[in-house]
Amino acid sequence: MSTPLFKRAAFIGIGMIGSSVARAVRTHEVAGQIVCADINAAYRAKALELGVVDAAYESPAEAAKGADIVILAAPVGANKSIMQVLGPTLEPGCILTDVGSVKQAVLRDVAPLVPAGVHFVPGHPIAGGEKSGPEVGDGTIFKNRWCLLTPAEGTAVDAIAKVRSLWESIGSNVEVMDAARHDRTLAITSHLPHLIAYTIVDTAANLETDIQGDVIKFSAGGFRDSTRMAGSDPTMWRDIFLTNPDAVLEIVQRFTEDLNLLQKAIRKGDGQTLFDLFSRTKEIRERVILAKQN
Amino acid sequence: MSTPLFKRAAFIGIGMIGSSVARAVRTHEVAGQIVCADINAAYRAKALELGVVDAAYESPAEAAKGADIVILAAPVGANKSIMQVLGPTLEPGCILTDVGSVKQAVLRDVAPLVPAGVHFVPGHPIAGGEKSGPEVGDGTIFKNRWCLLTPAEGTAVDAIAKVRSLWESIGSNVEVMDAARHDRTLAITSHLPHLIAYTIVDTAANLETDIQGDVIKFSAGGFRDSTRMAGSDPTMWRDIFLTNPDAVLEIVQRFTEDLNLLQKAIRKGDGQTLFDLFSRTKEIRERVILAKQN
Repeated sequence: MSTPLFKRAAFIGIGMIGSSVARAVRTHEVAGQIVCADINAAYRAKALELGVVDAAYESPAEAAKGADIVILAAPVGANKSIMQVLGPTLEPGCILTDVGSVKQAVLRDVAPLVPAGVHFVPGHPIAGGEKSGPEVGDGTIFKNRWCLLTPAEGTAVDAIAKVRSLWESIGSNVEVMDAARHDRTLAITSHLPHLIAYTIVDTAANLETDIQGDVIKFSAGGFRDSTRMAGSDPTMWRDIFLTNPDAVLEIVQRFTEDLNLLQKAIRKGDGQTLFDLFSRTKEIRERVILAKQN
Repeated sequence: MSTPLFKRAAFIGIGMIGSSVARAVRTHEVAGQIVCADINAAYRAKALELGVVDAAYESPAEAAKGADIVILAAPVGANKSIMQVLGPTLEPGCILTDVGSVKQAVLRDVAPLVPAGVHFVPGHPIAGGEKSGPEVGDGTIFKNRWCLLTPAEGTAVDAIAKVRSLWESIGSNVEVMDAARHDRTLAITSHLPHLIAYTIVDTAANLETDIQGDVIKFSAGGFRDSTRMAGSDPTMWRDIFLTNPDAVLEIVQRFTEDLNLLQKAIRKGDGQTLFDLFSRTKEIRERVILAKQN
């Protein structure tokens, strides 16, 4: 049996995404030891019970002791306070990475608290589910998905290579890119659709009770998909919107301009505009299928 | 073997939804003979080739000859012109129904053209896929889904009962309701989410080419779901928005008001407002799951 890529992997946060990565790391024998820290005692207990980790600590510093890779997997809003405690304890040569859905804010919050000799390679696996907690983690969700790495200029290339290997070992394709480019892209592929889904469901929640009952009862297709996304972890998503505001607001602005045009077409009975738009979007759909991301 | 519910079922339109119902009718032996009419010669040929129908005609009147149930399954915008030709040929005692996603407009367009002695029972099965054509029809999509019937006051109860039996035989639950209530409900459960999905994809299509490439490449989750809906048949959806404008515009207005509040919260960094909303929507999600529509 070959030597695992890492001696000890420490997950700071063992919720849905942390526990999914941990499971994948276990399955693919990427680390000799897998440990975690989490402020949530029930999460720690469950992760231990399920064998997702070999040890679970309340203190991030305890978890990171002797770790050659530390994976930040708490809501991105918690990174700064975690790093204020954890940062000084990280050992030279250690690799620090994360799984946050926004990257500029993570660099802004974390990079200044990374000690010399520790290699910070921010990452974002584009995968995940709507449920929360270590019991719903699923190590297979990274297979054939993208993981985007956004290390700052000057980061040690072998550290980046090791993080790339981690993700490739668990089935992902890796691309290294600029953090700003990441945030702009994810604003439309992920943040906007989630914001919209939350809004659709909230609009339904604000309807009169009798209509609301019908909406729940006869929900299928579009609304059901929206409710699925709107069932996502509130803390995680609050933090995403708070930490990627510029890109999100820009794309929401564009979206509302486009929606206004459609409202106008509907009001005026302009079938041609509607038909043309609906035909244009089929082409994007075909490209998504070709990119095998369907 | 018991006598089928209907002697001859005639489908006017044999696209995705028409051919799905036809397949289900065949499987569950609901009609002795199954025929169709469609203006699309390729659809007719394919439906015949696949055995979805026993005969396929260009003329709706030919298909409806001797039929005791006629199912309108073309885009709802075509109903008026179909009925102008078909209506006078329908035989007394025949039941006329449909599968359109809007009901007030269907009643408005079709009811005046229904001859005396023919029973018009509009219907809407809340099921369907994004693809088009008779080859993608799937008779199982109605199982455990709702079918909403919206007959006008005074419609013969035994005709309503027979249409109810048709849908129950192929696995659906049936509810009879007012057409206006139907349209208001579907505006939010279906029409708004589709409109939003089309808009999200169109916003992506209007981005600069380099970002667009990233959006396609790294699409997963929310955007991918939106593209799936935005790949739906342009004609069908154009007609839905043109024929349910009031309910759709009302719900889009409510939606944009709610979205504006969220934009403001993001701009102001108001995490509490975001968190509260995201928590509220989880409750709706739970109710959808309870209603077994997830």
